[in-house]
Amino acid sequence: MHGYADSKESHIKRMRRIEGQVRGITKMIESDKYCIDILTQVSAVNKALEAVALGLLDEHLKHCVTDAVTEGGQIADQKIEEASAAIARLVRS
Amino acid sequence: MHGYADSKESHIKRMRRIEGQVRGITKMIESDKYCIDILTQVSAVNKALEAVALGLLDEHLKHCVTDAVTEGGQIADQKIEEASAAIARLVRS
Amino acid sequence: MHGYADSKESHIKRMRRIEGQVRGITKMIESDKYCIDILTQVSAVNKALEAVALGLLDEHLKHCVTDAVTEGGQIADQKIEEASAAIARLVRS
Amino acid sequence: MHGYADSKESHIKRMRRIEGQVRGITKMIESDKYCIDILTQVSAVNKALEAVALGLLDEHLKHCVTDAVTEGGQIADQKIEEASAAIARLVRS
Repeated sequence: MHGYADSKESHIKRMRRIEGQVRGITKMIESDKYCIDILTQVSAVNKALEAVALGLLDEHLKHCVTDAVTEGGQIADQKIEEASAAIARLVRS
Repeated sequence: MHGYADSKESHIKRMRRIEGQVRGITKMIESDKYCIDILTQVSAVNKALEAVALGLLDEHLKHCVTDAVTEGGQIADQKIEEASAAIARLVRS
Repeated sequence: MHGYADSKESHIKRMRRIEGQVRGITKMIESDKYCIDILTQVSAVNKALEAVALGLLDEHLKHCVTDAVTEGGQIADQKIEEASAAIARLVRS
Repeated sequence: MHGYADSKESHIKRMRRIEGQVRGITKMIESDKYCIDILTQVSAVNKALEAVALGLLDEHLKHCVTDAVTEGGQIADQKIEEASAAIARLVRS
């Protein structure tokens, strides 16, 4: 079981909404909508994805990283390395 | 016709791929995949969306903004205000 | 004369303030301040820099790019390529 | 002692370099340098600041958060809340 188990349904709901937003952008392009309006939707999807990512990361720290640190040893170091690399990818994306 | 008309099909293709990636993330959550692997996919979708947005923006500057500036007057000022606001939303998302 | 000529003094004032913030972060590290408090200041400097960059970009579009487009020809294409590349760097930084 | 104690000198060195870069941007504006060249420097400073922040965050997770989690109880929850909030500010700046 992973850190996000308790909020799994809310993450799935958010992702389904994001799926709908992304499909909406595809339709805007297909029906030649104005560039600026499409860009506004892209920024909105970016923000929604960021919120999902930050939620997953918080839960990962609270559960997976915390359990590993409590266990101690190499598994703890590895989990923190992984979390730091994921944070860097998020900050840079 | 908007600035992206010439590359409409390639934008649609990219957005379809992004749709698939987003659906893939939803499935990863549904099947309890590891948080870090999900976060890696979210960063990848963010990057893919950024590339679509930057392409649309470039074409908007080359066509819509250029035509408005050539026409001159208030329409030119308005198009540039719009473009700057879209750029700010992208930089801050 | 460049696009930011009219707001040159306000850009300089903002950059001086950012210089002070950056020096403040250096001092926080020198005097062993708490990591989270330092990170809060780094995020504040990032936001302040973003505001300066978006201001410069807006003025560049309004003056340098507009003048080049009015002139037309290769200089216009080159200015827009340059602006798009600068926007991409900002979005990705 | 904080998480970054071991790499304090290297953080200070980086921040001094960033101070110099920021002063350089101020001088570019004072001497009417071309907008795009200034924007290139702003993006470079943003990236340098990001690297410092990610380094501090990694060390914070490895030391302050790890110590708190090992200690357990409320202090652990508080440290993770703090770290998640700092990550969110970084991702959104």
